[in-house]
Amino acid sequence: MSPKVPQDAFTPRPEHHFTFGLWTVGNTGRDPFGDPVRAPLPPLRIVEKLAELGAYGVNLHDNDLVPQGATPADRDRIVREFKAALQASGMKVPMATTNLFGDPVFRDGAFTSNDATVRAYALQKTMAAMDLGVELGAETYVFWGGREGAETNAAKDLRAALGWFREALNFLCDYARAQKYALKFALEAKPNEPRGDIFLPTTGHMLAFITTLDHPEMVGVNPEVAHEQMAGLDFSHGVAQALEAGKLFHIDLNGQQPGRYDQDLRFGSDNPRSAFYLVKLLEDARWPGMRHFDSHAYRTEDEEGVWDFALGSMRTYLILKDKAARFAGDAEIQQLLGELRARGDAGGARAPFSPARVAALKAERFDLPALRARGYAYERLDQLTTELLLGVR
Amino acid sequence: MSPKVPQDAFTPRPEHHFTFGLWTVGNTGRDPFGDPVRAPLPPLRIVEKLAELGAYGVNLHDNDLVPQGATPADRDRIVREFKAALQASGMKVPMATTNLFGDPVFRDGAFTSNDATVRAYALQKTMAAMDLGVELGAETYVFWGGREGAETNAAKDLRAALGWFREALNFLCDYARAQKYALKFALEAKPNEPRGDIFLPTTGHMLAFITTLDHPEMVGVNPEVAHEQMAGLDFSHGVAQALEAGKLFHIDLNGQQPGRYDQDLRFGSDNPRSAFYLVKLLEDARWPGMRHFDSHAYRTEDEEGVWDFALGSMRTYLILKDKAARFAGDAEIQQLLGELRARGDAGGARAPFSPARVAALKAERFDLPALRARGYAYERLDQLTTELLLGVR
Amino acid sequence: MSPKVPQDAFTPRPEHHFTFGLWTVGNTGRDPFGDPVRAPLPPLRIVEKLAELGAYGVNLHDNDLVPQGATPADRDRIVREFKAALQASGMKVPMATTNLFGDPVFRDGAFTSNDATVRAYALQKTMAAMDLGVELGAETYVFWGGREGAETNAAKDLRAALGWFREALNFLCDYARAQKYALKFALEAKPNEPRGDIFLPTTGHMLAFITTLDHPEMVGVNPEVAHEQMAGLDFSHGVAQALEAGKLFHIDLNGQQPGRYDQDLRFGSDNPRSAFYLVKLLEDARWPGMRHFDSHAYRTEDEEGVWDFALGSMRTYLILKDKAARFAGDAEIQQLLGELRARGDAGGARAPFSPARVAALKAERFDLPALRARGYAYERLDQLTTELLLGVR
Amino acid sequence: MSPKVPQDAFTPRPEHHFTFGLWTVGNTGRDPFGDPVRAPLPPLRIVEKLAELGAYGVNLHDNDLVPQGATPADRDRIVREFKAALQASGMKVPMATTNLFGDPVFRDGAFTSNDATVRAYALQKTMAAMDLGVELGAETYVFWGGREGAETNAAKDLRAALGWFREALNFLCDYARAQKYALKFALEAKPNEPRGDIFLPTTGHMLAFITTLDHPEMVGVNPEVAHEQMAGLDFSHGVAQALEAGKLFHIDLNGQQPGRYDQDLRFGSDNPRSAFYLVKLLEDARWPGMRHFDSHAYRTEDEEGVWDFALGSMRTYLILKDKAARFAGDAEIQQLLGELRARGDAGGARAPFSPARVAALKAERFDLPALRARGYAYERLDQLTTELLLGVR
Repeated sequence: MSPKVPQDAFTPRPEHHFTFGLWTVGNTGRDPFGDPVRAPLPPLRIVEKLAELGAYGVNLHDNDLVPQGATPADRDRIVREFKAALQASGMKVPMATTNLFGDPVFRDGAFTSNDATVRAYALQKTMAAMDLGVELGAETYVFWGGREGAETNAAKDLRAALGWFREALNFLCDYARAQKYALKFALEAKPNEPRGDIFLPTTGHMLAFITTLDHPEMVGVNPEVAHEQMAGLDFSHGVAQALEAGKLFHIDLNGQQPGRYDQDLRFGSDNPRSAFYLVKLLEDARWPGMRHFDSHAYRTEDEEGVWDFALGSMRTYLILKDKAARFAGDAEIQQLLGELRARGDAGGARAPFSPARVAALKAERFDLPALRARGYAYERLDQLTTELLLGVR
Repeated sequence: MSPKVPQDAFTPRPEHHFTFGLWTVGNTGRDPFGDPVRAPLPPLRIVEKLAELGAYGVNLHDNDLVPQGATPADRDRIVREFKAALQASGMKVPMATTNLFGDPVFRDGAFTSNDATVRAYALQKTMAAMDLGVELGAETYVFWGGREGAETNAAKDLRAALGWFREALNFLCDYARAQKYALKFALEAKPNEPRGDIFLPTTGHMLAFITTLDHPEMVGVNPEVAHEQMAGLDFSHGVAQALEAGKLFHIDLNGQQPGRYDQDLRFGSDNPRSAFYLVKLLEDARWPGMRHFDSHAYRTEDEEGVWDFALGSMRTYLILKDKAARFAGDAEIQQLLGELRARGDAGGARAPFSPARVAALKAERFDLPALRARGYAYERLDQLTTELLLGVR
Repeated sequence: MSPKVPQDAFTPRPEHHFTFGLWTVGNTGRDPFGDPVRAPLPPLRIVEKLAELGAYGVNLHDNDLVPQGATPADRDRIVREFKAALQASGMKVPMATTNLFGDPVFRDGAFTSNDATVRAYALQKTMAAMDLGVELGAETYVFWGGREGAETNAAKDLRAALGWFREALNFLCDYARAQKYALKFALEAKPNEPRGDIFLPTTGHMLAFITTLDHPEMVGVNPEVAHEQMAGLDFSHGVAQALEAGKLFHIDLNGQQPGRYDQDLRFGSDNPRSAFYLVKLLEDARWPGMRHFDSHAYRTEDEEGVWDFALGSMRTYLILKDKAARFAGDAEIQQLLGELRARGDAGGARAPFSPARVAALKAERFDLPALRARGYAYERLDQLTTELLLGVR
Repeated sequence: MSPKVPQDAFTPRPEHHFTFGLWTVGNTGRDPFGDPVRAPLPPLRIVEKLAELGAYGVNLHDNDLVPQGATPADRDRIVREFKAALQASGMKVPMATTNLFGDPVFRDGAFTSNDATVRAYALQKTMAAMDLGVELGAETYVFWGGREGAETNAAKDLRAALGWFREALNFLCDYARAQKYALKFALEAKPNEPRGDIFLPTTGHMLAFITTLDHPEMVGVNPEVAHEQMAGLDFSHGVAQALEAGKLFHIDLNGQQPGRYDQDLRFGSDNPRSAFYLVKLLEDARWPGMRHFDSHAYRTEDEEGVWDFALGSMRTYLILKDKAARFAGDAEIQQLLGELRARGDAGGARAPFSPARVAALKAERFDLPALRARGYAYERLDQLTTELLLGVR
């Protein structure tokens, strides 16, 4: 019931820091048009199998582990057994989050429901889920507001909704501080689905929103490949902005064709080129976070297919990481990049602002015809990268 | 050569603060597959005609008025004549901007070109354009970085590019301050076209970027309907976030089908429903800015069609403004909204955080079955709005 | 539990030929991220309520009425009771179809599964469902191949899959003929969801495929607004092609924002403009088919919201039908259209081909400068239409 | 001024049948927001350079070679010189087409303009262009109706427009037959741009339309990667349908991100995975047609970049062709595929229809629980393919 794990240069190991959600390998294949095709996988089995495959840890929503409505005694037993399984396998729980979307109570949102009672219940549920996450060792707490949105703008005051969202996050930041939880929050954007439109639809909107919170230093983003690509955006660009702002607190790796339903495909299986540039960005930046896969096996698969999927996700990351190293070591590519870096630098620094620099700049005569004529050799650079990616250089 | 301006409740007048770009009514219909279909309209004629139609002002790129490479004497004469036309017609120039995309010199970007000389030239050109804008009375200065982007991530260091962009904006903020220009900057996002991907692709990304500048208080956003809808985003949601953050400094009104080339259709002609929610948001917020149309007539049109287009843009805005007032006065709609506003409020305020509130919230027993069963009557509300929009209630 | 049915010019009546699927008003609100929010509505209740609201009939999948695995005795009792309810209410079942997507057995497709046994089972199930549909009086039989597709082209021979699809349709056409069923088949396209890509993704692909069948005269299309708009296509254009080819056998009315998950919104609630052009096309063509709504209430709604949704769907159609009549009667609009129809007709007919016409055409001297300069007044025409649609003319 | 052509397994040679349009390598980089960045390349130079790089031929629009309005004497001289260059280099002109989109006369369409005079002129221009194409040796004649479309459905009778389009194609088929031209017609679809919506927006719509022509056997399709991917469709699926119908008469290879302006990127540079499946499909089918690149170099490039682009296009095709051969020879992949092909075949053929088969099928008892439980191993197959594509197996 388990794929042979090939032992080669791309064999995953815990130090690669790969994590999966319980809900990802545990996905049963239910979709809008069909019933489940796979039995639910018990969390203990997931932990055991992922450890075998070389993962570092598992992440979870509160209800992935503890069913909605469990008694305190059941909750404690479940958690105890889960911790024992973690202990036995050496697996970690680096991230936890709250399911604020599955229960019909959240049909109009959790923190932004038009019903104030629902908003209060969402806070209560999240506090409990944060307690659980911290108990399991989580250091990052993700917020994905899947129901925070609207189908009709007639029904919701958009500015009030943003205010409610802020109020909730401020409250929960204060709660984490009061509890002395060493938690960082990571906000996850998505443009739509399951709501017609979801508030704060991209990583950019989230980065902006964070700066309006009471404790912005506690809060960063959790960009997801599929969510940005649903809106047709270049995922690496948004991640670069988050990295540059020191706000990349977590990441969700998967695959997605633009302009469609949320596919959560195996990482790299949609487009190896864009996956490569993402891996290159993360590795070039020596980003220290978890490489988390928020994806699931095709619905055609049985359990064996699920483990093939999990293993393949990690292997593809490692293959692309190796490609990034080759890119850094490719003499022809690096020569082209070196020429680009040097280009036009003769003029000296024009910034920061000073009156002298303004005067000089206003007086400068640019050789516009020459600047207009000069090409950048990006076709050549891109073709070299393509050939490197395809393994023929 | 000019449409009869119907005199009715929707006749545009200067106090409505409608503005057009010289480049919009002046658009010649050139596109990627075809030659111009209309002769260029002289700026003086544009000013005169728009005044006749009831507009408040015109906006411009530096080169819309002063051709690239004009001598100082030519430049001064052109400006003098243009100011005289403004004077004669009572028209204003509330906004100005720089053309940093048309000249081949900017083929790899202006502020983010890999060529440092190009980046310097972009600064020089922008300072001159700012001087021109201020001379014409502009109070808002727009930055649309149409060439700031990439076709291949192999070629550009994404984080370096964001740094260059920041450096340029910081420089130009300082320049405006040094010159004592009463200018606010408004950044305009676009996801792609003419570059494969443009940096900072949505209003959300721009709002986040602004917080990293040296003088964030000087800088806001200029969201454009078409640009956000290209990415399939609900335009009103992004505008609401900008409004709530006090950052809506300007707006570009037009129309666009999602997931296509930049269409710049007549405002409201793509989807009157989304246009309605935008107008309602701006009017409900009593937003004081200019209603600027960044759009152009279909390429099928001659000059008469251009003026039909301009007049229609303004009329549709006024029709939708009237609809927003009717929405506010519709008893059945307002009763539904009142019920929503009151919903669940019995519990009292749960925020801001306090230990007592946490304790109370943790102890609260929610009647989940009741909360799960209750509907929100959004179908009814949306249908009432549809019938109001279609003029049958 | 039921909306007041306003008695006005837009009150639905059976002669308007509005139909709903049992699965549409019966939708429980389950989605990829959440549980059902509404209890299943018994088919008998649906029939009774829709009749009250003015509908003409209901349509169904086999398993909407008879649960998968029902005994023959149960099946017969259910059918008997359902027919009695139809009789009592005067409602019809004009269309029936097969659920070939819900059961995990169809995870890789029904007629195009890589497993030949599944393909055989799909035929068996469809024959039984056709028998049921005919027993209930259906005259149109719809095929929506929701699982006929792929996530990876490595796994399926695309040409073989098309062959299997054809083989199944040929078989079932022959079955209908052998049974002397007066059934027309209507093929429904969808680009993706629940499969990564669905075969024959648009109405255009379906129209082409039909011409390759053994009995093309029996087979037409069932275009669905949402499905074509998912791919960003203008729905009216595809419907016009089907109409022109005599192949519009059925239609699914609903709403959808482009480039997203399948939304199945209330007809006209996404974009009243595109809905208007569709209604205008159908009414101008005096198309005699059913106006079927394949959509469902927002997940925020309770049962009352479902009936609001159903009533609103029909009202919006009737409002737009009235707009189409006003368009036909608007003197200013019709004058513009008359000018367009007359344009350039002085030259006489250039077709069909004849040697004399070729000679004349080759010799003709066209006044290209005049043709290049002339506008088409489409901005004016479109603005007049907008104002008519918004009820201000 | 020319890339070193690496001599390796992927060096293009004439027998690979690679062709380029004069307009593709000749693209000057003009776009909606910017001026040309490269000087026009003389056709003679294009022929010479492409021959050097290993191409088989060049294709052209009438006006790529003979400027609009050239005198007959000029036309003849240009053609004579061009034929001499072909002769000298061994290059062919396998395909020709008409520019029916650049001239403002076609602003509302060519064959579907609302102006009958324009429709007549489009016929005249096309006959002359066909004469030119045949004189140059073309065997395929492409029709891309870039202006056949609409921005507003108020202005054009959609069914009349389809009728005009058909009338034109019928006329031109008859013309080719009368002239005894051995030409096949290939229709090229595009969903939008430069028109808001283009008629017959996908290859599927074109395939359907062809069956309504007087001489359908003369007419096939010319699918273009970018055009189908603009609509988010899987390109290989549409090509497979065309192949299966015997209607793939030509193909346009390039690259495109979904849901954007027409990018015409270097083949394979957008997504090597989808490019691979296309090459695999064409090679597996031993499709004999030309591999035509309808794309252009990034606007960042100078002339050297253009040749890098041309060479890279061909190299990537050959690399992917080699991958397709490896896929066919990979034992592990082929074992999985063999199992799929054998699956469920024990039951024997269920088609074509016969009463006996119906009886047997109705009586068959399927082991549904077993069929529901069985996975398809597509994750494993797709991962193996990914690793093969990335060159690590």
